[in-house]
Parts: sequence; structure tokens; C-alpha cells
Amino acid sequence: MSQPGGPLSQLRRGHEELVLGLLRKHGPLSRGELGRRCGLSRTTLYDILAELVAGGAVVTASERETPRGRGRPAETLTLNPDAGQAIGIDFARRGLHVAAINLAHEIVGSASEPHDADLPWEQRVELAGRLVGSLTGGTLSLGALSAIGVGVVGPVGDPVGDPVGDPVGDPVGDPAVDPAVDPDRGPEEDGAGEPAGPHPAQVLLRERFGVPVLLDNNTRLAALGEAIWGAAAGVQDVLYLRLSHGVGGGLVVGGSLHRGAYGLSGEFGHITVDQDGARCDCGGTGCLETIASIRAVLDAYRAAGGRAGDVPELAKAARAGDAAALAVLDGAGAGIGGVLAALCNAIGPSVIVVGGELAETGSSLMDPIERELRAHVMPISRHRVSLRRATLGEVAGALGGIALVLHESPLLSRYPAGPELAEDPPTTQSGRRPAKENP
Amino acid sequence: MSQPGGPLSQLRRGHEELVLGLLRKHGPLSRGELGRRCGLSRTTLYDILAELVAGGAVVTASERETPRGRGRPAETLTLNPDAGQAIGIDFARRGLHVAAINLAHEIVGSASEPHDADLPWEQRVELAGRLVGSLTGGTLSLGALSAIGVGVVGPVGDPVGDPVGDPVGDPVGDPAVDPAVDPDRGPEEDGAGEPAGPHPAQVLLRERFGVPVLLDNNTRLAALGEAIWGAAAGVQDVLYLRLSHGVGGGLVVGGSLHRGAYGLSGEFGHITVDQDGARCDCGGTGCLETIASIRAVLDAYRAAGGRAGDVPELAKAARAGDAAALAVLDGAGAGIGGVLAALCNAIGPSVIVVGGELAETGSSLMDPIERELRAHVMPISRHRVSLRRATLGEVAGALGGIALVLHESPLLSRYPAGPELAEDPPTTQSGRRPAKENP
Repeated sequence: MSQPGGPLSQLRRGHEELVLGLLRKHGPLSRGELGRRCGLSRTTLYDILAELVAGGAVVTASERETPRGRGRPAETLTLNPDAGQAIGIDFARRGLHVAAINLAHEIVGSASEPHDADLPWEQRVELAGRLVGSLTGGTLSLGALSAIGVGVVGPVGDPVGDPVGDPVGDPVGDPAVDPAVDPDRGPEEDGAGEPAGPHPAQVLLRERFGVPVLLDNNTRLAALGEAIWGAAAGVQDVLYLRLSHGVGGGLVVGGSLHRGAYGLSGEFGHITVDQDGARCDCGGTGCLETIASIRAVLDAYRAAGGRAGDVPELAKAARAGDAAALAVLDGAGAGIGGVLAALCNAIGPSVIVVGGELAETGSSLMDPIERELRAHVMPISRHRVSLRRATLGEVAGALGGIALVLHESPLLSRYPAGPELAEDPPTTQSGRRPAKENP
Repeated sequence: MSQPGGPLSQLRRGHEELVLGLLRKHGPLSRGELGRRCGLSRTTLYDILAELVAGGAVVTASERETPRGRGRPAETLTLNPDAGQAIGIDFARRGLHVAAINLAHEIVGSASEPHDADLPWEQRVELAGRLVGSLTGGTLSLGALSAIGVGVVGPVGDPVGDPVGDPVGDPVGDPAVDPAVDPDRGPEEDGAGEPAGPHPAQVLLRERFGVPVLLDNNTRLAALGEAIWGAAAGVQDVLYLRLSHGVGGGLVVGGSLHRGAYGLSGEFGHITVDQDGARCDCGGTGCLETIASIRAVLDAYRAAGGRAGDVPELAKAARAGDAAALAVLDGAGAGIGGVLAALCNAIGPSVIVVGGELAETGSSLMDPIERELRAHVMPISRHRVSLRRATLGEVAGALGGIALVLHESPLLSRYPAGPELAEDPPTTQSGRRPAKENP
């Protein structure tokens, strides 16, 4: 057999995509018609078709009537209209977000539910199941579910945690997260070294849904979501910064999520902005997070004599012209803009997306960010990079989970029409969005 | 016809690579043997073979004896031993570097020649021709040259500046550099906007050699060279920093050169390190380049009472324990290490390579860089990222030019054995290296 990722394996996947693309474009085709169009030998084509039929992506006319009723005697093959559905789940720190797409890659709905930060994984997955059920009432057949893409808090290595093939039974395969790192605590010193097992969300979701479960950091997934469906839809090189209880982000490079060598990219919140600054939870000093997280900004506002219990109150004060609120947001924005300028010079994105609850403070924060970005980015880039606020709200991570399935799973070949994704903005079934992002 | 980059075009390229890989691995094969091994239909295989033979990548046994002399009556096909050669040229600011590989992707030689910074392009290309000739005396047949990869100073957008096909005659196709940006001046404000024509090096080299000429920024190419043949050979995620007359660098992401949306990535030298610092040539203030370029470091040393006309003298003073030299290098190293830590948190490379003449000062500079890097990178990354000095010297950019041809040109399919590249360290024919990098 060929090695995964080797030229023969890639070639085979290319063959699968070609066959699926032809069925998608032309509708039902006989084996002979497929053979003439794809240029593959009879042996190769029949092998590929057998695998696609066994995997449920393609059905023969004897299993399902051909829609056009051409009345040919030869058996025809067609895409399975019940396959190709996917769900994205964002297990954020204090809440759960789910989104689902149908065969046409249309987002059929999304839903969110807050919960305590210490809710056990069993109950989180139970809650996820209920939310998915609420989405799939009339529009999705759970039996046709192909894969689930999941976002979690904290560092994640290889996103594909689950081999394809027999969708039920086997224990989850590849490790995808370092168990020494508590996924609810974010980055911290790890003494344990290498990853040693699957994430609990993967194990429990696979038990419940019986399908492959792909996993990545939820902030990185939000970056991917914004680059496909959101503020940077269709843009190939995107830098996404999330200003929330923590400060983090993600990079989309050439249209793909960038992870870095150890799954540790996008940790913009732990870039030093003040060597003499405050101690950070990561163990560092003067990290961006110490001046630009929700807590940091609210603390600074209170220290300046302001009164605000949360971000909406701070935003309200800023809109009302409260000098202390404006000064605090200006200071945070300046620090953020300086970091973004440095990253721009290094990485060269065309769009920077700023999301998270703090971005809801609007121009009081975005204007100083933009000012410092333009002041410190190389002059040649100054008028090229675009700064935008995130648009997907709190479901960005769940949508990114779906994108993970579409882009990166071995099931990719079941979804040959990725680029169409950007055309359909998400609809909301639960009515909870737009609201805060990934709380 | 299928669109370039579309699934059908990709599939065809996959077929080509498969066929070439089989010929590479098994030696001469008949069409029947090839068909059985590759799984393609007779029609598809014959189409592909016809194109490969027409393009010169494959020859039939009637044109060339089969080395093994199997004596079969059926015509066999084999890789063309005269094809697949490539040259890399680095048009640095004050010198020229060339390198060449043969069909086996072995580097057959490299050569360098300094020149004045204002040498006209016609004379640079003339000089390049002479150096290439000196390399190809006994080992390369210029008639078999497949492509040239070229590095130039300054921002470069799309690297592929030259369509393949008829290798002689047509004017150069796609624009690859913004002519509003003087390639010898580096980044600066550009009012002219979009690229409007090929780089003079591309036009002149194509006239002289009659083959496609691919172009990119020479510092980015040095990054690619170090990631394939040098200090980070075989590493997928590499950050390369060059400390020379200018300060710049490049990113290798997932094994490929990262360019950024407008070809403006890797401008590490223009990251602000001191908002109250010196004015930079880029128009900014307090850029890394204002504290870490050769001139900046030598000026700081002289300001501290030291006497050094160039980097070797400064290095000698540092090795002798000169306190001012050590303090100056420590200060520059601290600034560099801080920037590298920020970039590590954002991008997540596994190896950082530091090159350029200043790196020749050794541990007096590398130690403070490492100290500040470890101090400011996220604790979770602290023991994962590796800091290394560049090993390719001044020919890194020329080797990167070859890598550009191997990795990214439409000729890629003529070079199916990329991963083998790392095994053969470059040999020097001119005897000039190792010396300074890209002066």
C-alpha cells in the first residue's frame, strides 16, 4: 500500500475528487461515461468507485432512482444526497456553540448555550448533543452525519484525531492534544512532553455520534471561520486577533489554517509589549494579554476611577465620551496596533480581523488600533493591509470546525466544492446570535 | 482545457509526477509496464508520455540506449539524463552568487563575485553568464538547462514571472516585480500601485539562456535554501533572519516559502523595537534594522569608543573580551531576541536560523539573542524552538533560487525527487565560500 500523504495516496485522492466532481457536475453517470470523462483505467476507476460506494459517498441507481429518469439499462452512479453533512462544535470556556451544514454546504443553523467554566466534559457533550438535535430537527438527518469538527480552548497539535473507515467501534486513533495541558487553562509550562492521547471531547463525541471527530484550538478555528464565511470571506492571507478573557488569534496562510511546528501558532496574546509590565498567566511578563484582555481593560478603567462591570458598560461609557474609558481603550488599542504592525511586517496578511467581546467597543478601540498599525507597519504595506471587525460573532469557532472538516479531513474528497462555501452567510436557528464571541 | 490550478490540471500534474517517479525508480520501462504500474488508461498514459517526450523530460530507447541493455524488442522510455538541470543566481546588492545542480539534484558547484552596487543590469547578467560558464565547464550542459531561479534585492510579488512552453522567443509574460520599486533600494513608499512588467534580470537572462526565469526576493530565497540544504535542512517550519547591511528574513511554512498577500512577508528588520529610536531608511522609526544592521552595530561600537572598520574586526574585538564590543553585541542581540520571541509566539517555527555577516560574530551575539528569545517566548515553546546559525554562507540565496525552480515552477514535474535534495551538501568550485552571506 502507498503511504498516507505519499504521491500514490495523493494521486488516489485526486482520482476520488475527480470522480466526485464529475458526479456533482453532471449528475448520475454510468461507469462507462465516468471512465470516458476521467481518463482512468477501468481497473482504477472500479476500485475508486467501490471505495466511494462502500464509504457511502456515492450510491448506485439500484439503491436510489436516478432523478432524471433517463431510462438507461446500465446502472448509474450518483452522489448520496444523505451524505456530506457536517457539524461544528466550539467548546469555549464558558459556553457551547454549534453549527451545521447540509450536503450543499449551506449552513442550516447555529445555536449557543452558556455554561459554567467547570462543567465536566460528559455534560458538555450531552449539552452539545441537545443543541445539535435542536438544529437537526427538520433539516439534518443525523444518520447522514459525515464528521464533526471541534474547537477547544488551549494548545492543540495535529488536528486530525480520528482515522476514517469503520465509523463506529474502534477507539479513537491518533492523539491530538497534549493531556498534560488542561484545555481549560490555556498555555502553560508543560513538563510532560509529547501528546499521549485523544481529547475527552473527541472520545465522547465519537461514542455519541459514531463519526470521525477532528479537533483544533477554537480561536484558530474562529480565524478559519472568518476567512471563509466572515469578515475576510474568500481572503487567502488573514490574521485574526481575538480580544476576550484571553487574547489569542490565528493565521490563515494561502487559504489554509497555519498551525506552526507544534500547534503553537497564533499566540499573539503572549507577545511581550512591556518588559516592565504585569505578570501574565502564561508565566511571562508584560504580554499583550496583560493590557488587552477584558479583565486588563476593565481593571485599567476602574483604576482610572471609572465604573464598569463588563464590556458593554465600558463600551457605553466610551460612546458617551467618558474620558477615562476613551483613554483606557486608546492605550490598549495602541499596544494592539503595535503588535499587529510587527506581525504584518513579518507575515504579510492582506486582511486583519479583530474579534472577541472587546471589539464590541467599536471605534473607541479600533481607531487607535488602526492608527498604531499604520504608524508602525512598513510604509509599503500601509495602504494595502485592511483592518476589519469580525462578523461571525460567537459562532465563528463552530463554523471554523465545519471548515476544518471541509478543508482538512480525509473526508475532504466527499466535499469537492469548497470554494462555494463563502456564498452562503449563516442563518440562525436559535436566535442567540449575533452576540459575544467565544466567551 | 482545464484551468491552471484546477482539479483537472492538478490531476494531470499528479499523473506526470507518477510517471516520472516510476521511471526514476525503476529505470527504463516499456509503455505496457508503465501502464500496469501507474493505473492510468492507455489513452491518458500515452497523452502524458507524448507531452513528457515533447518537453524533453523523457526520451525513448531509440534516441538513447537503455543502460541495462535488456534487449527487449518493445520501445522503452527513460528519463532524459540531459534534462533537469537548473541554475540559481543571487543578484545581491554588491555581488553575484551562482549555483547549479544536475539531473540527480546534486549541487555541482557554486561561485561568487563581488561588484559595485551600481553595476548596470546588463553587466550583472554578463557576469552571471561568465560565472555560470565557469561552473558548467565540465559538468553541466547549458543546452540541457531547464530553468533559472533568481534572487533580487527588494520586494517581489508573484515569483513565477515566465510561462513555460516555447522556451525561446516570446517576450516574458507575467509581471513579477513592481518597477516603481528600485530593486536596489529595498522597501520604500510606492505610489505607483500595481506591478507593470518583468524585472530586468528576468528579461536579460531569458534572452541569454532561452529558458524560464523565476524570481523572488533573495533573502526569502536564502530562507528556502537554509530550509532545504542548510542549517534547517528538512525542517518544515523555519524562520530565517539575515543580519547584514539590511535586516530581513523569510518564513518557510509547511515546507514552502511563505510570501504573504503582496509578497511583503519576512520584513523582520522593519518591526519597531524602540518607538523613540533612530529614523530608518524605510521611513519608520526605531526599526530592528536601526539597531541590528552592520552599520548600526559598528556605529554603536564606535560611539562606545571602539575601533572597528568591519564585522570581522568587531568579531575579533569581542573574542578578545573587549567590553564595549561585547556590550554592543549584547544590546543588539537583546533586541533581536525579543523580536524573534514575538514572531515565535505568532508563527510557531521549530527552527530559527540566523545568518548574514553579523552572525559571524558568533556567541557574543547568538548568546544574548538566545537569552532574550527564551525569556520572552511562551513558556510552552521555550524548550521546543531551536536557534541555529546559518550554514550556507553567501550562496544561500542562489541555492534558494534552485529550490524555487524545484518547488514552484511549472517544471516541478520534471523534478519528482525533491526530498532527496537535503542529502547532498553543496560543493564549491570557485573556492570562494564559505564567506559572507549575500553582501
